[in-house]
Amino acid sequence: MISNNNSSCSQQTKFNLVQVKGTWIRQSDQFQLAEGKLSDAKIYENKSEHGVSWTVVSPVVFTYRVIQCKNILDPTNDTLLWGHLGEEELKHTLSNCKPPKRFVVIDENVNKLYGSQVSQYFKARGVVYKILPLPTTEENKCMELVTKILEEVHEFGIDRRSEPIVAIGGGVCLDVVGLAASLYRRRTPYIRVPTTLLSYIDASVGAKTGVNFAGGKNKLGSYVPPVAAFLDCSFFQTLPPRQISNGMAEMLKELTQCCADRYGMCSSAGMTLMKHRGLFELMETEGRKLLHTKLQVCKTRPEQEDSATAIIRIAIETMLEELAPNLWEDDLDRLVDFGHLISPELEMRILPALLHGEAVNIDMSFMVYVAVQKGLLTVDEKNRIIQCMLSLELPVWHQDCTLELVQKSLKERLKHSAGSLRMPLPTGLGTAEIFHGMIGDGILCQAHKKWTDELSSSGDK
Amino acid sequence: MISNNNSSCSQQTKFNLVQVKGTWIRQSDQFQLAEGKLSDAKIYENKSEHGVSWTVVSPVVFTYRVIQCKNILDPTNDTLLWGHLGEEELKHTLSNCKPPKRFVVIDENVNKLYGSQVSQYFKARGVVYKILPLPTTEENKCMELVTKILEEVHEFGIDRRSEPIVAIGGGVCLDVVGLAASLYRRRTPYIRVPTTLLSYIDASVGAKTGVNFAGGKNKLGSYVPPVAAFLDCSFFQTLPPRQISNGMAEMLKELTQCCADRYGMCSSAGMTLMKHRGLFELMETEGRKLLHTKLQVCKTRPEQEDSATAIIRIAIETMLEELAPNLWEDDLDRLVDFGHLISPELEMRILPALLHGEAVNIDMSFMVYVAVQKGLLTVDEKNRIIQCMLSLELPVWHQDCTLELVQKSLKERLKHSAGSLRMPLPTGLGTAEIFHGMIGDGILCQAHKKWTDELSSSGDK
Repeated sequence: MISNNNSSCSQQTKFNLVQVKGTWIRQSDQFQLAEGKLSDAKIYENKSEHGVSWTVVSPVVFTYRVIQCKNILDPTNDTLLWGHLGEEELKHTLSNCKPPKRFVVIDENVNKLYGSQVSQYFKARGVVYKILPLPTTEENKCMELVTKILEEVHEFGIDRRSEPIVAIGGGVCLDVVGLAASLYRRRTPYIRVPTTLLSYIDASVGAKTGVNFAGGKNKLGSYVPPVAAFLDCSFFQTLPPRQISNGMAEMLKELTQCCADRYGMCSSAGMTLMKHRGLFELMETEGRKLLHTKLQVCKTRPEQEDSATAIIRIAIETMLEELAPNLWEDDLDRLVDFGHLISPELEMRILPALLHGEAVNIDMSFMVYVAVQKGLLTVDEKNRIIQCMLSLELPVWHQDCTLELVQKSLKERLKHSAGSLRMPLPTGLGTAEIFHGMIGDGILCQAHKKWTDELSSSGDK
Repeated sequence: MISNNNSSCSQQTKFNLVQVKGTWIRQSDQFQLAEGKLSDAKIYENKSEHGVSWTVVSPVVFTYRVIQCKNILDPTNDTLLWGHLGEEELKHTLSNCKPPKRFVVIDENVNKLYGSQVSQYFKARGVVYKILPLPTTEENKCMELVTKILEEVHEFGIDRRSEPIVAIGGGVCLDVVGLAASLYRRRTPYIRVPTTLLSYIDASVGAKTGVNFAGGKNKLGSYVPPVAAFLDCSFFQTLPPRQISNGMAEMLKELTQCCADRYGMCSSAGMTLMKHRGLFELMETEGRKLLHTKLQVCKTRPEQEDSATAIIRIAIETMLEELAPNLWEDDLDRLVDFGHLISPELEMRILPALLHGEAVNIDMSFMVYVAVQKGLLTVDEKNRIIQCMLSLELPVWHQDCTLELVQKSLKERLKHSAGSLRMPLPTGLGTAEIFHGMIGDGILCQAHKKWTDELSSSGDK
């Protein structure tokens, strides 16, 4: 990465950067003369007969919090107002006598259900606030919505260092607000409060923001994590069952990748429930019950971690594990892309017929057939996975997911993957691997035929 | 930063992240069970009676090249096409048999002068290219221009990993294209080719992108560095003298901060010319000549590094030193903000009367008077600095830079500076320091009066 095209006749010097009296000074590795704070950034200077060049290597550290909590809208709960701050930062902030300011963007449907509680919370806490309800649907997920937010934020006025923008809603709301915040003054802190199961385990924990553009899903966006995500399951109580299934599809994706052995190794993390049981099996046996109880924690035995709590926590931990080391997606080998190769194209094409998780599930269902065709998965394993999806009331096939669409999606994907497809595929129940290179048309064709033969009538039931 | 609000009753576990078979696995610090690539990212888990929270600490490493070269538009010069790649990357890319694609945005005035050469370059190199000339003026620096670029890029089609967008023009062009590229598919590589002196030493080497919004300068943007900046002084030959002065103001800013001692320490970097002479003195004695020769290198003694080359190189090195350790401006103490406290407001208010560097110079000129009033600078030093500015044909005073505007700008700045103004001020010829806290109205008022008394007639000459 820092080699030089003319290495034969060039001379490279590595410089460290030292802060002395507020100024940064470069110092060659050989001559350390000044003392001061050393930066992790480096400058490499190359001199050759063609001229001088510098290579700057500069790490930027992103820090963010993900907090699970209960009753986030209860005015006695500090989380919504101060949860993004550490103890010291909070002390510093509270020593300021100004009342805090918060700009809140809320999905308009969520606003109908929880808007007055949000208002009451900020009123009770003496906050100067403005609540902006917006129709944050997939169809409206565009730059115009970002601009609308920016205009309102600008008019309201916030301190871009200490007054985070708060987003309350589903994935679209969190993505759009994240993009607006990442653009405003080149970066304004923001907070994600997911209200759907899908956004709780997906959009809330990552760094991605985005809007649709030119008919393409999330074609514009940034990688800027929120300062904090506050996760409160109780919002799920007001979700329609289809929205719960929708989230369970993304969960299933993660559980498919979570080999039970991994969690065996992590017993120190306190996951005793998981230590002796496969995670996929948990979804198989408990999934339907979780769907109908909307993943609410069983109140009769609060001392015990129940399956709802456990399954949600593992889903989040799995996402954090995959995202933290690859926040800007520099590494293209991403297991979390399972279910996301064909689904973006499918979802955008038949908008708004399918929810995001539903499109992801159809993609995964097809990929399970590809895995069988490639000899990675047994027919019995395939049947168990499809059965589990059906029990979660998820679509496993769609007429618009044609072989042509599959091929087009994979080709499009290939164009942006530095020459190698990098396809995550299940290799068993709870294990997955990344496969490089294109999948042969023969395998795709056979898998698609079998998939259609077996599942095209699945929706008729 | 990673402390917990409820530390009294919480338990923190630090997790490392290890990559095993393509999957990231978290492992507590105490139990290292699996072997694999270790990430620099960490996850801290906190458990308390209120629930679980995680703090993610994830470093993202930005790497970019700054290359000084000659004759960048000569088809035999590889830089424009391949200069952003290292030796290994280049080999890999050349092994691909596809012709390379480049989308080029060029300022429309630059296009008139160099457009056909750019076309010829890409034609001669067998590149599939599209050139988009745009009116990249400060008045047009807005989101609509970004959208226009994005639409054209999308229609043209590029591989977002390997086909960088190229920007050729002044600072506005580089900023606008940088923002478009940073948004397209959440980050598309881009290359900066500055054609003005100002953008050569300023916009080209940093990470900032941006557009104006709601009457405010660069209110929207991102911090995403280009993959490379290619610097060719020969573009300056076609610049009007006012544009050279404009760039020299930013240069003067940097030289004001470059204490000669620092360069004494850095003699290993080969800056022999600088070793025994103050940099400010160089500008004082050579500045006017440099202005009239448009900083072109003296061809009669090519073996010797002349003052034009030296002064440009030091300006770039100074910028790189200050930017590399603070790419996302997490540290608010930035010496490079000298001249940038009042100038944004002034520049936007009387657009397009002043060029950016001219507004910066007026700001610096006023701040020199503030420094005298605070006892940091002698009257003699002040006179030398102002005299040097005048010799570079830069404005040192403006009727619209009223005391009210100064006070408003500083107040606005304070709002976004986490409670402390952080004002860089010169403390001698070639030294500067950051001063915290607000400047008293008395000092501002006296400095402004003296500044107006002494310099208001400077433009009449």
